[in-house]
Amino acid sequence: MPTDFASLRSQFDLPEGVIYLDGNSLGPMPKAAAARVGHAITQEWGKLLITGWNKAGWMAQPAAIGDRIARLIGAEAGSVVMGDTLSIKVYQALAAALEMNPERRVILSDTGNFPSDLYMADGLCRTLGPDYTLKTVAPEDVAGAIDDSVAVLMITEVDYRTGRKHDMAALTELAHKAGVLTVWDLAHSAGALPVALADCGADFAVGCTYKYLNSGPGGPAFIYVAPRHQDVARPALSGWLGHEAPFAFDLDYRPGAGVERMRVGTPPVLQLAALEASLDIWDQVDMADVRAKSIALIDRFIAGIEARCPSLTLASPRDGKQRGSQASFRHPEGYAIMQALIARGVIGDFRAPDILRFGFTPLFINEDDVDKSIEIIRDVMDRALWDQPEYKTRARVT
Amino acid sequence: MPTDFASLRSQFDLPEGVIYLDGNSLGPMPKAAAARVGHAITQEWGKLLITGWNKAGWMAQPAAIGDRIARLIGAEAGSVVMGDTLSIKVYQALAAALEMNPERRVILSDTGNFPSDLYMADGLCRTLGPDYTLKTVAPEDVAGAIDDSVAVLMITEVDYRTGRKHDMAALTELAHKAGVLTVWDLAHSAGALPVALADCGADFAVGCTYKYLNSGPGGPAFIYVAPRHQDVARPALSGWLGHEAPFAFDLDYRPGAGVERMRVGTPPVLQLAALEASLDIWDQVDMADVRAKSIALIDRFIAGIEARCPSLTLASPRDGKQRGSQASFRHPEGYAIMQALIARGVIGDFRAPDILRFGFTPLFINEDDVDKSIEIIRDVMDRALWDQPEYKTRARVT
Repeated sequence: MPTDFASLRSQFDLPEGVIYLDGNSLGPMPKAAAARVGHAITQEWGKLLITGWNKAGWMAQPAAIGDRIARLIGAEAGSVVMGDTLSIKVYQALAAALEMNPERRVILSDTGNFPSDLYMADGLCRTLGPDYTLKTVAPEDVAGAIDDSVAVLMITEVDYRTGRKHDMAALTELAHKAGVLTVWDLAHSAGALPVALADCGADFAVGCTYKYLNSGPGGPAFIYVAPRHQDVARPALSGWLGHEAPFAFDLDYRPGAGVERMRVGTPPVLQLAALEASLDIWDQVDMADVRAKSIALIDRFIAGIEARCPSLTLASPRDGKQRGSQASFRHPEGYAIMQALIARGVIGDFRAPDILRFGFTPLFINEDDVDKSIEIIRDVMDRALWDQPEYKTRARVT
Repeated sequence: MPTDFASLRSQFDLPEGVIYLDGNSLGPMPKAAAARVGHAITQEWGKLLITGWNKAGWMAQPAAIGDRIARLIGAEAGSVVMGDTLSIKVYQALAAALEMNPERRVILSDTGNFPSDLYMADGLCRTLGPDYTLKTVAPEDVAGAIDDSVAVLMITEVDYRTGRKHDMAALTELAHKAGVLTVWDLAHSAGALPVALADCGADFAVGCTYKYLNSGPGGPAFIYVAPRHQDVARPALSGWLGHEAPFAFDLDYRPGAGVERMRVGTPPVLQLAALEASLDIWDQVDMADVRAKSIALIDRFIAGIEARCPSLTLASPRDGKQRGSQASFRHPEGYAIMQALIARGVIGDFRAPDILRFGFTPLFINEDDVDKSIEIIRDVMDRALWDQPEYKTRARVT
């Protein structure tokens, strides 16, 4: 049955007068979220107290929810587990992959990666010692830089600024041919487009849930470990909930079975409850339908902006298959333009130095939103409404 | 003004017929929690969307809430920040401390430490290389094991099983005399008893908020870095929110100023909202009053149990000043006994191999609860009500 996008949209609470093109930064609130979290607080925490870990299933949530996300990213059942933040999961995946390739010392990434991934890799290299290095090349030079000096290829599939999409299947194959393990960051992929981790033979993957997966501010991350690696990968962050028998309280660490060894501490039950409300919506979705409609919406947006706003320069690939679920444009006054747009109800993101970023997801954005946003952007550009001191003061932190 | 315990108790929602002596595992729900989190969901996330990071103050929460916790643990303003889980914060503190003592390779801890701390230390040592070791001694042998081979002393102040309390001031002084840095785990201290991190000269401290601080299941952890170390300590987990300028999206990591460099990824806004509801209660509390009443309640409990239940053997120090805010008893059938008690509304914890653990906090436990729980325990023991197959099956995970 084809995905019913009108029904999906009706399951989100969207403020009046807002066209929200920033679900790729923080997804909007599912209408069911407050009730679901309220239930977790008053009926589970409030009434079950400590027994909620068993009776309400809190302890099993990270794996159970991982399986629901696995479907959206082409992962095997039992290969995804929730917890921590994306940066922490990057560290875990990198540390495990480096140890599995012990003769090599280089992490290869690209300058289009999200900075926090690079920071975490840099931190890990410093902890491991001076032999270890993080090497970054331009996104278009990644394939050529994969050689037998590289231990791990760490790539964010979709560039957070431009939306340019790497070819996961091709890069993973190249990496494996050179004896390189892969860590894929799906921050701008999960819920944005079909991902095929198992089919691509990916080794590790990580992602967050507060963007396209709409889990709310501070929602937890996920980590994928290919089944063939699960009993080999050592959790460098070896917390008790990744232990084979957490409640034996043994003094020695023994990693648990499967991907659950990548759990660290107590799972964020309230954030996971919000995520569950969102996954109830995602369960109704076919990712192929999402992808087709996302490309159509963005093609429409790009055509409209290019026709009406010649001073904005497309920064995203024109070919829908080459990009994620966003369209970005460059303008030297990008910051002020975005503030002016936000003041008029078109919410996107500014990303330094000059990127206006607009995220599209058919779960709650339709053609009418696209057309209206084009008109508002045209008006702001035609009348230079952004040219106000109030829009040029950089007080905004995100 | 003395702390008004009857008023505090009225601010928690406690199920009918339950005497909850497990607030040291998961604190009960403040009545205001659901509304506070509901507001964060519907009014902040729902209406402000991405602008909530500034307009609702989400980005500033980890430091602002850290300052409210600082008061409870004798820490300087600006020295505590929230995030992640306790295990992650242990790793960060240990990694930073080890680097600050580069000529040494030993982490010293004790066998009474919570296993996850030992697991994280072991994981860090494996990542650092074969020169690094975690050495554990019996709790009573810690002082004697501090010597100039030790880089970092990692101690949980209050033993999670017995409640035995280490002398933070004395051990920290001994450590410093031997050139050893200290990492204190306050899991069973924060909100349980007065802590004087600054006065003791502690170097690093970590703790969780879902026990005595009542933040709910999966509530975030905190980390303390002494002001004298804040510009030296390198965050091994170097995430973007610990960067000097997270939204400049620079490719190179530069740690931020002060304790905020220990931030890693996106803060768990919903869990932090629940914590805020609890801290509104904690703001009304004088920790000295809590300590005095806690000792009185536990003295009363121990006297009652010892008089009425001779087969239960006290596992906690008899001197209130030597223990945290719990009383533990040993019994070979401890598991079954605890299940029988839970079935009768007295909720404590079993901790392998034979410990019955009862947590007391004057915020919601009073003398009447103590007396009633003693009677129920007496009845279970006198009539061997625990001697049922249903209580001996170990299905319970926590």
